[in-house]
Order: sequence, then structure tokens, then C-alpha cells
Amino acid sequence: DMMTIPKDDPVAFTFFTGYMAMFAASVFFFFERQSVSDKWKTSLLVSGLITMIAAVHYYYMRDYYAATGQNPTALRYIDWTLTVPLMCVEFYLLTKAAGAKVSLLWKLIAASVLMLVAGYIGEAFVPLNADGTAAAGATNHSVMWGVISTIGYIYILYTAWFGEVKALGDSSGNPQVIKGIKILAWFVLVGWAIYPIGYMCMPGGWLNTGLGWTSSNVDLFYNIADAINKIGFGLVIYSVAKSDSATAK
Amino acid sequence: DMMTIPKDDPVAFTFFTGYMAMFAASVFFFFERQSVSDKWKTSLLVSGLITMIAAVHYYYMRDYYAATGQNPTALRYIDWTLTVPLMCVEFYLLTKAAGAKVSLLWKLIAASVLMLVAGYIGEAFVPLNADGTAAAGATNHSVMWGVISTIGYIYILYTAWFGEVKALGDSSGNPQVIKGIKILAWFVLVGWAIYPIGYMCMPGGWLNTGLGWTSSNVDLFYNIADAINKIGFGLVIYSVAKSDSATAK
Ligand SMILES: CC1=C(/C=C/C(C)=C/C=C/C(C)=C/C=O)C(C)(C)CCC1
Ligand SMILES: CC1=C(/C=C/C(C)=C/C=C/C(C)=C/C=O)C(C)(C)CCC1
Repeated sequence: DMMTIPKDDPVAFTFFTGYMAMFAASVFFFFERQSVSDKWKTSLLVSGLITMIAAVHYYYMRDYYAATGQNPTALRYIDWTLTVPLMCVEFYLLTKAAGAKVSLLWKLIAASVLMLVAGYIGEAFVPLNADGTAAAGATNHSVMWGVISTIGYIYILYTAWFGEVKALGDSSGNPQVIKGIKILAWFVLVGWAIYPIGYMCMPGGWLNTGLGWTSSNVDLFYNIADAINKIGFGLVIYSVAKSDSATAK
Repeated sequence: DMMTIPKDDPVAFTFFTGYMAMFAASVFFFFERQSVSDKWKTSLLVSGLITMIAAVHYYYMRDYYAATGQNPTALRYIDWTLTVPLMCVEFYLLTKAAGAKVSLLWKLIAASVLMLVAGYIGEAFVPLNADGTAAAGATNHSVMWGVISTIGYIYILYTAWFGEVKALGDSSGNPQVIKGIKILAWFVLVGWAIYPIGYMCMPGGWLNTGLGWTSSNVDLFYNIADAINKIGFGLVIYSVAKSDSATAK
């Protein structure tokens, strides 16, 4: 049962800390929502929803991993199906202060749907032997779907660094928003890039076959990346909101 | 148990995402209620109640489906017994801003009771063989009760497009309310029409016998439609309320 956490299993550790950290972050964002000016309240609420949804899914993933020792792939993508679009809402709300139109949100969501659907096919349907090792064609399968998924990722990356999001940041006169958009671009470049590293640890993946990183590392990387992107980026929004609220007063 | 979500079962997927999405939507509506003007607060509360009730029922339906692989028909109609009349309250509150009388609410509720009672008889008491396949008379049974149910649905549709709701929208001078009523009519036409499609996937139903769509698709369509109508329409009300509150300031 889930009370027996092996003392030498970092994946189990991060599932447990991830669960509590997401939970605590939600409480933080929900309370602090009251201390920012009105226009930032929805952003803080969405940050809190992202970590709240993740807390529930981490609760299940933690127990699933403890009980089976397997990657909770379905639960992971169920989480992302909800939290990645909400991250796009977060990005949109930040750029809205600089004049973004709702079409930007739909484009980001469409790109993330491509990214997640391809990633799910790549992970969930990789050809395996009965003992869980990579079967013939596993590497081809994971590389092909990983590349398709990366197209969606690169679209978001491009939008943040050179496209609409960047342009909106430049044209807004608000130094807080400009700063927030710059940090956003770095999160998408560095924080989000941890996920494909995890992906490549699955059986047949390049880091698995090449460096021998086992498939339990998939969740190690995903858990670390989730903490950075869900909690870390939420805290960035929080600090932008606090500074901007102080200026507006 | 429900921890083992089959990787290739979209119905299980939508039960799980549906549960979390309803839950998150309730938190959203309850918090954001504070940021709209007084006359919209009840609408946001009702939106939050609809998704909160649904979250609890999805929790049970998800586990029921995971454990049995069957359609949770009783739980589904238990949910609708509460949430469909609350949707009617939502419609009434929107048109009230344009002068609707409470008799409109009772007429909408009466029509939805007809729709749901007939639908339940059609689904729950369809003649089945011991192995769950359609028995003699299944198609007749499901078509007859489906048609009776559709009478209630068409009454609501008529009211929204050509009847009292439409007239009230026209006579109100408020552009936000007019816009909201127009969107309402489209939700009833398109969003609600997904339910009868799901219904026709049950054993003996036209899409089941005609196109071979199996009965697990019943819940797939119901889950998608519920997300659109419960969360989507709630968000429409929210955006109408936000715009109207901003204008009123
Ligand atoms: C590029 C790529 C991937 C990217 C995943 C990402 C970028 C996930 C981001 C999740 C976030 C930001 C959640 C926050 O709430 C996959 C699907 C692993 C498959 C391999 C290729
Ligand atoms: C017409 C028709 C049906 C319509 C169901 C509808 C329209 C349900 C709406 C539910 C909503 C809006 C829930 C929101 O909270 C049934 C009963 C499937 C039976 C077949 C004929």
C-alpha cells in the first residue's frame, strides 16, 4: 500500500512531494488571490486550479506507482489534457493585458492538443514484450510520434519567442507585463523541454537504449518538470501581479 | 479498480477528465462570483452548483464504469434530474434581466421532466438478452420513448429560437443579454443535440444497429455533451456577466 515508500526510490519520493506541493500551492494561490488587484484575480485563480487538478491526479498517480511500479501513463495524460490548456489560458491572460485576442488562446490550445495526442500515442502504444521491455519497432514508434508532438511544442515555443506573444510584449508599455512575457518564454524553452527528456527514457527511447536510463525515469523527469512549470510559473505570475498591483495603487 | 485505466478506452478517459473538469469549474465559478455585479451573482452560483453536482456524480460514474464496463444509466439520470432543471433556472435568470416571468421557468422544467422521464424509460427498460445484446422489440422501445422525449426537447428548442425566450431577448435593450440569449439558443440546438446521438448508440438504437456504434459510445457522447453544456454554457454566462458588470461601472 501507499504507506510503504521505498527509501531508495526517488520516483516514489517525487510523487509524494509533488502531491503535497501541488496541494499547498493551490491553497497559496487561492488565498493570495485576494491581495492582488482585480485584473490579476483570474490569473491567480487559474494558477490555483492547475495545481489543484494536479494535486488530485498526483494522489492517484502516487498510489498507482506505489502499487504497481509502473508509469501511470493514462493518468499523466489525463492531467495534461486539463492542465496544459489551462497553462495556455494563463499565457493568454498575461498577454491580454498587452492586448491579445482570444484567437491567440485557440492557436496555443490547438498546438498543445497536437503535442499531447501525439505524445500519448507515442507512450501508451509503444510496442512492448510481455516483460515490459522494448519490442521490435519500439524506437521507430517513439521517435516518430515524439517528432510529431515536437511540432506542436515548437509552434508554442516560436509564438513565445518570435511570434504573437513576443510582439504583444514589445508593444505593451507595462514593464511588469514585458518582464512576465520574457520569463514565460524562458519557461517554455527550459521548463517544458524537460518533458521530452522524460519521454525518451521509455523502453525503446533514445535515452533508454543509448544511455540505459530506465523507464522509471520518465516519471522522475515529468514530476520535476511539473513542479517547475505548474508551481514555478504560477509564482512568477503571482510576483508580476503583486508588483503591478503595487504600481497601480 | 478505478486505478487501472485502460490505455485505449476513451470512455474511461472522459469520465476521469470530466470529473476533474467539473470540479475545477465549480471552484472557478464560486470564486469568480465575487467579481461580477450583484445581479449576476446568482447565475454564477447556479453554474457552480451544476458543475459541483456533476463532479460528484462523475466520481461515482467513473468508478462504476471502471468496475463494470457498463453504462451508469441510473446515475446519469440522477444527475440530469438535478442539473437539467438547474440549467432551466440558468436560462430563466438570463431572461429575467429582460423581464421574464417565473411561469417561463415552470414551462421549461415541465418540458425537461417529460424529456428525462421518457429518456429514462427508453434507456433503462430497453428489452435485452442475458448477454446484454438487443432483444426483440429493443428498437421499437428505444425509438418510441426517444420520440416522446424529443417532444420535450423540441418544446425547449422552440421556446429558445422562436418563443418566449426569443421575444424577451428582442424586447430587452441590453446588448449583453441579447447576445447571451442568442448563444443560449445555439447551445440548446447544437450542444443538447449531442445527447440524442448518444442515446441512439444503446443496444437496439439506430446508430447501434445501423452503423455498429457500440453502447459504450452512449457515455462518450454524454460526457462530451455535458462538458460543453455544463462548463461551456457556464463560461458563456460568466463572460456575459463580466462584460455587463464592466459596462454598469
Ligand atoms: C515535446 C514532447 C512532449 C512535450 C510535453 C510537454 C511540453 C508537456 C507540458 C506539460 C505542462 C506544461 C504541464 C503543465 O501543467 C511529450 C508529450 C512529452 C512527447 C515528446 C515530445
Ligand atoms: C432529446 C432526447 C434526449 C435528450 C437529452 C438532453 C437534451 C439532455 C440534456 C442534458 C443537459 C443539458 C444537462 C446539463 O446539465 C434523451 C434523454 C437523451 C433521450 C433521447 C431523446
